[in-house]
Amino acid sequence: MDGRAGLAATPGALPYYVAFSQLLGLTVVATTGAWLGLYRGGIAWEGALQFNVHPLCVVIGLIFLQGDALLVYRVFRNEAKRTTKVLHGLLHVFALVIALVGVVAVFDYHRKKGYADLYSLHSWCGLLVLVLYFAQWLVGLSFFLFPGASFSLRSRYRPQHVFFGAAIFLLSVGTALLGLKEALLFKLGAKYSMFEAEGVLANVLGLLLVGFGVTVLYILTRSDWKRPPQAEEQALSMDFKTLTEGDSPGSQ
Amino acid sequence: MDGRAGLAATPGALPYYVAFSQLLGLTVVATTGAWLGLYRGGIAWEGALQFNVHPLCVVIGLIFLQGDALLVYRVFRNEAKRTTKVLHGLLHVFALVIALVGVVAVFDYHRKKGYADLYSLHSWCGLLVLVLYFAQWLVGLSFFLFPGASFSLRSRYRPQHVFFGAAIFLLSVGTALLGLKEALLFKLGAKYSMFEAEGVLANVLGLLLVGFGVTVLYILTRSDWKRPPQAEEQALSMDFKTLTEGDSPGSQ
Repeated sequence: MDGRAGLAATPGALPYYVAFSQLLGLTVVATTGAWLGLYRGGIAWEGALQFNVHPLCVVIGLIFLQGDALLVYRVFRNEAKRTTKVLHGLLHVFALVIALVGVVAVFDYHRKKGYADLYSLHSWCGLLVLVLYFAQWLVGLSFFLFPGASFSLRSRYRPQHVFFGAAIFLLSVGTALLGLKEALLFKLGAKYSMFEAEGVLANVLGLLLVGFGVTVLYILTRSDWKRPPQAEEQALSMDFKTLTEGDSPGSQ
Repeated sequence: MDGRAGLAATPGALPYYVAFSQLLGLTVVATTGAWLGLYRGGIAWEGALQFNVHPLCVVIGLIFLQGDALLVYRVFRNEAKRTTKVLHGLLHVFALVIALVGVVAVFDYHRKKGYADLYSLHSWCGLLVLVLYFAQWLVGLSFFLFPGASFSLRSRYRPQHVFFGAAIFLLSVGTALLGLKEALLFKLGAKYSMFEAEGVLANVLGLLLVGFGVTVLYILTRSDWKRPPQAEEQALSMDFKTLTEGDSPGSQ
């Protein structure tokens, strides 16, 4: 990484990193589709292929769309804050709805086959992700989209929201890796150690998932790429500061 | 989480979070030991138990000690910077050496048993962690411990070092989850879905690993808990600024 370009005041490199993250994210989705199509017989809501709806939907929802929702404030730097917020919230809704289709698919498949539910580490982590994701969305909505919360309250909650957003995203990536591994070991068993084509493709998919997670986290955490406060927000924040001597909400 | 206490200017809550992280980290190590002792016959360098050296050593090295090495700058806030750096570097050396014992154990075990190496996603991620960990350590050493690098160079590299340190730690946690899952599915197979005691204990261990990772990340990233620049560093940085008009190294 070029340290000089990295610390320049203008985020000239940001669009390239964002483009790279999108390329990686789409490759993750395409590779998941290729894996399911080439080695698992494709996708259908009925019969044995219903299981395959699960990995595809959770990868689209909880990996690609969730990751993109986190990047909204870095990408739309000059839009009105409210527009960006609505986009951020909506992307998370899409992500959750698509993920829920995937979750319903696997429970329905297990029910029809008479398999046990929620016994594996993958399922425990997945459940934790869903509960935290929904809670974070509700709390975020009530703090940032409804006008009730004060500037001071928002500014105190914002870093927690950002941290837990990143943590839930990373836990989603980890959960996907566990699920991928589970699907491989259940089907391939000892053949996994013979470098079967499916195993190698799935390992590559795992590394792509890690790469997407790291890239999104990098864009999200780089301090000189944070969204600058806009004139309207600065004015409001100054007003508020004068009135209450509380801390200003700043930008995230 | 208490937002009010959370954003107080003095990091009054920091010691509690650090204590909690240590409790979690030690519980992770103890649970790994309990799992290997109760369900895997314990540990030995010779014979079938040699494999068990692997999970114990990598959990101690690449999870517990690596996590603690990241926290050194948050815990030792008022020691001389150089002392803290040396401790940070040494903890990483211990972590790497202990992890390498665990890695040698599994390769040696595979060799004796005639098993294939490096075919699984766990092993690919593990190899990636080792290579990145060693590279990060070498680059960190040359930038921060040797006197050659200028203040300006150090201050440009520092955020990259912190980001990649956190990313490698998180990848280590993810790799441990994959390894745990692999060990469970190889041994338990279909019995995993019957809520066998070993499966439940290992799932709990997985959640503890996630909890330790999240707690360390939280302490590391909270902006008001960062190490304040010390008088000596500030003076040096001012000097340097005057001389070169470059950016000041600040603190991390």
